[in-house]
Amino acid sequence: MLYEINEKAIRLENQGKKIIRLNLGDPDLATPNEIIEAAYGAMKAGKTKYSSSYGEKNLREKLAELNGVKTENVVITPGSKWGIFATMYLMMKDGGNVIVPTPYWTAYDLIAKSLGVQTKLLRTEMEDGWKVDLDKLEAMIDKNTKMIIINNPNNPTSKVMDAEILDGIVELASRKGITILSDEVYGTISFVKAKSILEFNGDHKHILSNSFSKTFTMTGWRIGYVIASKELVDHITKFNQITINNIPVFIQEAALKGLEMQKRLSTKIKEEYKERAEIASKTLSKAGFEFTKPEAPFYVFPKYPGLNSEKFTLDLLDKGVAVAPGTAFGDYQEHFRISLTAPRDEIKVALEKISEAVG
Amino acid sequence: MLYEINEKAIRLENQGKKIIRLNLGDPDLATPNEIIEAAYGAMKAGKTKYSSSYGEKNLREKLAELNGVKTENVVITPGSKWGIFATMYLMMKDGGNVIVPTPYWTAYDLIAKSLGVQTKLLRTEMEDGWKVDLDKLEAMIDKNTKMIIINNPNNPTSKVMDAEILDGIVELASRKGITILSDEVYGTISFVKAKSILEFNGDHKHILSNSFSKTFTMTGWRIGYVIASKELVDHITKFNQITINNIPVFIQEAALKGLEMQKRLSTKIKEEYKERAEIASKTLSKAGFEFTKPEAPFYVFPKYPGLNSEKFTLDLLDKGVAVAPGTAFGDYQEHFRISLTAPRDEIKVALEKISEAVG
Repeated sequence: MLYEINEKAIRLENQGKKIIRLNLGDPDLATPNEIIEAAYGAMKAGKTKYSSSYGEKNLREKLAELNGVKTENVVITPGSKWGIFATMYLMMKDGGNVIVPTPYWTAYDLIAKSLGVQTKLLRTEMEDGWKVDLDKLEAMIDKNTKMIIINNPNNPTSKVMDAEILDGIVELASRKGITILSDEVYGTISFVKAKSILEFNGDHKHILSNSFSKTFTMTGWRIGYVIASKELVDHITKFNQITINNIPVFIQEAALKGLEMQKRLSTKIKEEYKERAEIASKTLSKAGFEFTKPEAPFYVFPKYPGLNSEKFTLDLLDKGVAVAPGTAFGDYQEHFRISLTAPRDEIKVALEKISEAVG
Repeated sequence: MLYEINEKAIRLENQGKKIIRLNLGDPDLATPNEIIEAAYGAMKAGKTKYSSSYGEKNLREKLAELNGVKTENVVITPGSKWGIFATMYLMMKDGGNVIVPTPYWTAYDLIAKSLGVQTKLLRTEMEDGWKVDLDKLEAMIDKNTKMIIINNPNNPTSKVMDAEILDGIVELASRKGITILSDEVYGTISFVKAKSILEFNGDHKHILSNSFSKTFTMTGWRIGYVIASKELVDHITKFNQITINNIPVFIQEAALKGLEMQKRLSTKIKEEYKERAEIASKTLSKAGFEFTKPEAPFYVFPKYPGLNSEKFTLDLLDKGVAVAPGTAFGDYQEHFRISLTAPRDEIKVALEKISEAVG
């Protein structure tokens, strides 16, 4: 449904209709110019050849330093999605199941399905502040459970996991010998502190997947990284060798430039999205929507009792606003996801139309 | 062994030793400046966002036009390796085996192994002009054979397949209901006409995998394409959605610029490599090596009776020349592969050292 909405939005735009696009997690801001110039400089310097399937040493070293791990624990990937696919491809070869709390990013389930891996969905509720119930999680684990995928901060709720809940999940996973794959692509731009899986990870039993997309407005560049045990990093590298081979070195140089500017860039992004979240929260509350306050970019995941989210989403699109139905993130018929990735004035117009649509 | 040699070459270089690198298919020429400028222009124009998993429409249309197919038959991939991996991942899900003539590019076998697919190697001999024996091929086909992978022109021999042999393979495959996956990354820069699988492919039963790497000196950029049935193109696109997502649009714009200059660029590359092949052929003949004359860039695959190719390769590396052992391409102990991807003066020095090593 996520893709259908997007295709329909593009179709309407091609017909000349103005659509306010709040349906994707693709920031409206441009990639910072310094990052573009770094890529260009590297291209001109001849950094256009085959290169290491681990990623460039200087970028891995910088990421290792920033994350308090060794260089051997870092492998560069073409986006965090690749990190998740490669990890599941390599770790779930002999079958097994993976537990994913919902609402969730659809890609986890689509990847699992493609690999013939069973996904067990652990429902969380807005009314509980989207908290994972540890007893339910423990009850869901069986002898074939190999992995728990968490997304912290979460897409679509923009909720940061409570530190104690994360502690509990890690304790449980460690006790049961299960690997946690933690997707933290919104981590460095979170409004509140999001505890990273790396804080528990002296022995690299668990895995971090991260991306340059959101922090550095580099979505289309396709660059991310995995931090894991040396063994898994070596396996992902061998897998890279027979699939994507390498990420262009000039893109890695651009990402390295981004890291140098991380503090400044993430501060700016946080401020902007906090402001947008405030604007959205006010209007949505007034119109009778229920939601948890965003604790990170880019989303709000409001609920309206009795809503048919797919019909609502399609009708709204005809009125010029694209959002994503709740059903694209699990069994959340009364919810929809607003991605605040448009200029404030557009967001305001869209919010009015959203409010009118249920009024 | 290919990777070990390369790692050792890098290690020696890091120690300050000068190594003439004839071990990889990575051209010494730079990516043309117009291509770099096209990428830069696109970045500055904001073409840095998430984009279609099919690839950009303008690039697909141009490739369709150049190859005489419909746009719906073209999908852009991050390199030809990805095209091969994705195709095998999708087509060999239910098991089966794939036949590959040798000598062959190792990636085919490594991909098959990773996917749990059996590879059946069909040996060809230098003494037969590296011809595929159609009777042997037919005898090798069993009820589980799903695919034949051909590489035309071939790496490591730089031999172009005789048109009648290709006709025979296609006839056989069609009769047996087997798909041919044709890797033609050296096709447009071949010295002699190489018949493409597309010439047989009105119904898109067979598959072309191609790349911008060799023709446009864009190895590290990671961009290629697959031409196949609409059905397979749609499947690869769905697979792209859960793995690599998209190729950066600015890289696709760069590739499009390359296509505009294709004639000029490929003529230049052909001339240069033909000259290099002449130089190599003369010296190697004089030193008593046997080989078939290269009909395409970048390789010569000489034989020396009694040679231990791995020992020879390692010894040669200590003398400052990196080549690849024959065993990296199948059971070819008496062969080694010279990649003519260095300036002529370096090639000459290297050839002298190679000649001395067996003298």
